[in-house]
Amino acid sequence: MAVVLANARDKKGNLCFDVIGIDLPHRESYLQTIMRGEIPFACEDASFAKELRHAIVVQDNLRISSDEQFYENAEVVVVDVHLDVEKLNADDYRQCRVHKEPFENAMRTLGERINRDCLVLVETTVSPGFCTRVVLPILCEAFGRRGIKSEPLLAHSYERVMPGKHYLKSIRECFRTYSATTDNAKERCKNFLSKIIDVENYPLKKEDSPEASELAKILENSYRALNIAFIYEWTLLAEKMGVNLFSVIEGIRKRSTHSNIMFPGIGVGGYCLTKDALLAQWSADNLYDSTYGLPFSVMGLEVNDKMPLHVVEIIQEKEILDGQIIAILGVSYREDIGDTRFSPTEVLYKKLKTFNVSCFFHDQYVENWNEVPEANFVRTIDEIKSADVIILATRHAEYLEHSESDWLNMSKENALFVDANNILNDYKIAFLLRNKRRVVGVGKGHLSKLVR
Amino acid sequence: MAVVLANARDKKGNLCFDVIGIDLPHRESYLQTIMRGEIPFACEDASFAKELRHAIVVQDNLRISSDEQFYENAEVVVVDVHLDVEKLNADDYRQCRVHKEPFENAMRTLGERINRDCLVLVETTVSPGFCTRVVLPILCEAFGRRGIKSEPLLAHSYERVMPGKHYLKSIRECFRTYSATTDNAKERCKNFLSKIIDVENYPLKKEDSPEASELAKILENSYRALNIAFIYEWTLLAEKMGVNLFSVIEGIRKRSTHSNIMFPGIGVGGYCLTKDALLAQWSADNLYDSTYGLPFSVMGLEVNDKMPLHVVEIIQEKEILDGQIIAILGVSYREDIGDTRFSPTEVLYKKLKTFNVSCFFHDQYVENWNEVPEANFVRTIDEIKSADVIILATRHAEYLEHSESDWLNMSKENALFVDANNILNDYKIAFLLRNKRRVVGVGKGHLSKLVR
Repeated sequence: MAVVLANARDKKGNLCFDVIGIDLPHRESYLQTIMRGEIPFACEDASFAKELRHAIVVQDNLRISSDEQFYENAEVVVVDVHLDVEKLNADDYRQCRVHKEPFENAMRTLGERINRDCLVLVETTVSPGFCTRVVLPILCEAFGRRGIKSEPLLAHSYERVMPGKHYLKSIRECFRTYSATTDNAKERCKNFLSKIIDVENYPLKKEDSPEASELAKILENSYRALNIAFIYEWTLLAEKMGVNLFSVIEGIRKRSTHSNIMFPGIGVGGYCLTKDALLAQWSADNLYDSTYGLPFSVMGLEVNDKMPLHVVEIIQEKEILDGQIIAILGVSYREDIGDTRFSPTEVLYKKLKTFNVSCFFHDQYVENWNEVPEANFVRTIDEIKSADVIILATRHAEYLEHSESDWLNMSKENALFVDANNILNDYKIAFLLRNKRRVVGVGKGHLSKLVR
Repeated sequence: MAVVLANARDKKGNLCFDVIGIDLPHRESYLQTIMRGEIPFACEDASFAKELRHAIVVQDNLRISSDEQFYENAEVVVVDVHLDVEKLNADDYRQCRVHKEPFENAMRTLGERINRDCLVLVETTVSPGFCTRVVLPILCEAFGRRGIKSEPLLAHSYERVMPGKHYLKSIRECFRTYSATTDNAKERCKNFLSKIIDVENYPLKKEDSPEASELAKILENSYRALNIAFIYEWTLLAEKMGVNLFSVIEGIRKRSTHSNIMFPGIGVGGYCLTKDALLAQWSADNLYDSTYGLPFSVMGLEVNDKMPLHVVEIIQEKEILDGQIIAILGVSYREDIGDTRFSPTEVLYKKLKTFNVSCFFHDQYVENWNEVPEANFVRTIDEIKSADVIILATRHAEYLEHSESDWLNMSKENALFVDANNILNDYKIAFLLRNKRRVVGVGKGHLSKLVR
C-alpha cells in the first residue's frame, strides 16, 4: 500500500503523495531493510521490488520510520495494523481471543497525535462494529483530552490484496468497498482511494456505515473458507465410494451458478481465511449480543484446520508409519508464492512428527520457514530419491510441469506418492502405478481402477 | 422428458422414438389428463402445452398407460420414479428414512419384464451407490429367475430441469453427466442422450461409474442449499448491526470468485434442494459405513427449513401477534412459477397458525395449494387492504413491478410490510415509511436509517 501510494500520480503526471511508512520501534531491522529499498519478505512480483526502489531511491517520496511525530502532519493515516485472533480450543473455535490491545494502542497514539482534519482510514480486517464501537471512542476520547471538539474522520475500506506475481496490481485493480462514520469522511475516503485505484474499471462501492464495509470483508472470506470446508465431507465420501471427485466437480462447474465450487485439497492457509470468521463471531458475542452466532462459518474454520490430517489418514491406509523417510513438496500455503503463514503443510508436518518418521522438505519459494525453523530443506527436487513417501502438498507450477518419467526417475522403487493437492493427473498416476510406484490422492477414490 | 423424447427428430427430420409414459394404476386420473393432451400441473412454459398436444394428437407417438406390458418391447426405459426422504427429527436430519420400497418395486417389475438388451436409464436423484448396490442386484436377480445370463444395461444420468418459462429448454439445453455399469451401457446411454440433448453446445460428461453421476447431482444441489443456509447467520448478524446485507453482497458479488454468493431471503423450497443431501447421508450411513457423514450439508437443510421462522421473529419485533389479519403474497417456492412443493411459505404459515391471527394468501400462479387445502386465497392483489400485516414472500415479477404508490394504495394506514424476499427497494420503502406505513425486511438492518 505504501509503495502504491508513493507511485500514485495525478492526471498531469505529478506525484500525489509524500508517504511515510511507520511501524513500531522493535521492528527497526525490518524497517531498515525497506529503507535500503529491499522487500523484507518473499515476493514474486518483480514490479514490486522495482517500484519500491524507485520510490525510495529515485523519487525520494517514501520514508520509513518508527517515529510517531510523523502522524502530526499527516493528511491521511492508512491503518494496516494487524488484529490477530488466537484460537483457544481446537474443538471449539468460538472460544477465541481477539488481541485488540496493540490495535487499540495504535489508535490511542493516533488520537494523541493527528490533526483534527486527518482522515484515519482503517484497512485492517477488523471485527464488524470495531471502527464505530472501539476505534471511534478511543479517538474521541483522545481528541477530548486535547480539547478538539470536531468528530474524528474515520473510514474503513479493505484491500483484496493477493500475494503472488500480481501483488501490486491486486491493490490497484480491485473493487473496493468503503464507508466512514461521517459524510465528510466518506467523501475524503472516496477521493483518496480514487487516486490509487483504477476506479474507471473498478468503481468504488460506498456503504452506509463502516460496519457494512467491515462485515463485507469477513463475509467474503468466510464464504470462501466455508466452501473449501464443504468439499471436505464430500472428499471423504467420494474416496470411500471409489469416485474421482475432481471429475465430478469439473462436471458441476459447467453450471454458471456452480462455477466456483472448490476442488478437494490439502486444506487452506494464509493470514485471512484461517481466522476472519472468528472476528465476526467475536463481534456477535461481544458487540452485538447475538446468541445465534456464526455456526457454519466457525465450523468451516475448524474443518479446514483439520483437513491436512486427512493426508496422514490416506498414507496410513498404505503404510504403518514407522521409520519412513518422508519428502514433503511444497511448504507455502498457496501455489507459486513463498508465503508460509498458517500453511496446511505445517499442520501436516506437526502430525507426522508424532510418528517415528523423518521428514524433509522442498519448496523453491521458501528459504527460511519461520514457523518451522528446524525444517530440513533440499534445494533440488531430485534429492527426494531417498524418500519412502513423497507428499505433493502445494500446487506449484514446478510440480505440475514434471513429466511422469521425471517423477519415476526421482523416486525409488515402491515409493508411495501422496497427491494431496491434485498435482498428478490420471495419465501420470497410471504410468507410475505401472512402474512399481504406489499412488494415493486426496479426492482420488478411483486410483485402484487405473491399473486394471 | 416424455414430451422431449416424443418430439426428438434425427438429422433427416424423422421422429426418433415411440414413447410410452407409464405410471402406476392409482395415478389413472393423472394419466387421463395427459392423455387428453393437458398438463396435469401448473406450468409456465407455453411451448410445453403445445408440444404435448402435438405429440399426442398430431404425431400420435406419445402414449400414456399404466400397463406394465409395455416394458417388454422397450429398447430404453427412462426411470423417473421418485425416491422420497422423510425427515424423522426436526433437530437432527441425519435421522431420516429413505422410502426406497416403491423404487425397488419398480425395478423388480422392470427386471421381470424388460428385454435383456433394454437400457435402463435412471434419471432419479438417488442415494449415491444406489444403482450399483440396490438397483443392479434387483435387476440381476430378476434376470436370473428368467434364465437371462447377460448383465443388465444400467445407466444413470440426471436432469437439471428447472420449472418455469423454459421448462422444456432446461432439459434439451443442459450439461449432462452420465455413466453406467458397463461400457456397452455407457455407449448406449451416450447415444440415447445425444438424440435429445443439444450436445454440440452442451457436450455430455462421461463419468467412470454411476456412483460418480449419482454423487454429482446431490453434491451440486447440496452446494446450493448450503450456500443459502450460510447466508442465514450473516442475515441475523447484519440485522442486529443495522447493516443492509443486500448492498454488502452486491459488493462481494463483483468478485468473479464470489459472483454466486446468495442474497438473504425467506428460505428454500422445491423437491430437490430441501432433501437431496439426506440421500447422500443415507448412503454414507448405510452403503459406505462412513462415520464422518455430511455434517455441513445436513445442517444446511436444517437451517434452511428454519429460515421462514425468522420472518415471524422480525414481525414480532414490531407486533405482538394477537388478532391481526395477515396477507401473505406468494405461495410457490420460486418466483414466477406455481410450484408449491416444500414452499417456505408453508413453513411460515404453519408457524403463524400457532398464534391467534388470521391469514389469507395471494399468488397469481397458484389455484389450488395442495399442501394447504384450507388456505384462503384472494384473486386480485388489491384485496389485501384489510391486512394489518402484509408479508411479501415470493419474488414474483408482479410484486416487483408494483410502484410505491401501488403498495401505498393497496394497504391501510399503519400496515406492517414484511419484505421477506427483497421485493421492495429502498426507494419504495422510504416512500412507504414516510406515508404512515411500517416496513421490516429480512437482511434489511438499515431500514430505520431510511427515514432520518
